[in-house]
Amino acid sequence: MILEVAMLNVKPGTQEQFEVNFGEAQSIIESMHGYVSHQLQRCIEDASRYILFVNWQTLEDHTVGFRESKEYDLWRSLLHEFYDPFPEVLHYQSVYQNP
Amino acid sequence: MILEVAMLNVKPGTQEQFEVNFGEAQSIIESMHGYVSHQLQRCIEDASRYILFVNWQTLEDHTVGFRESKEYDLWRSLLHEFYDPFPEVLHYQSVYQNP
Repeated sequence: MILEVAMLNVKPGTQEQFEVNFGEAQSIIESMHGYVSHQLQRCIEDASRYILFVNWQTLEDHTVGFRESKEYDLWRSLLHEFYDPFPEVLHYQSVYQNP
Repeated sequence: MILEVAMLNVKPGTQEQFEVNFGEAQSIIESMHGYVSHQLQRCIEDASRYILFVNWQTLEDHTVGFRESKEYDLWRSLLHEFYDPFPEVLHYQSVYQNP
């Protein structure tokens, strides 16, 4: 399993609509092959910052299966307009975890 | 519950020792009041980057209870030498999650 992490900077004043759109968009990733789980969290210190975590079974489930899908076009149309700057997205593997 | 997130840039060439020291240090946070869970994950695209997640019952369990403790001095002595630059640490609250 791998973890996708995106630090999202949402244009100030658009957070409420971003959260509405994300609520719609999340069903897209949940339906994709290799999807395991996800979380969207809002920053306490800066309400225009969010962090998105998505666990995928493999790296390619995200980078190929999702990003090259038709569903990604809908995801993008719902969410990408809110980001400034466009986020860096990286992938991680667990070293330690408890529990 | 709140999530502490630290993006860690570890000096190249020191990752192996950092992971050894983290393996020792994690028992420190696990013993603190308000600790819930943690994960250390290594970046696939850049092996000098890690992300640390710690769930705490409250923000103050981290910012006051842990950071003002004697145990924090030991945590710092085990880990802070590896970071360049010193990480920004932010806290998050869940907006959506599945499951």
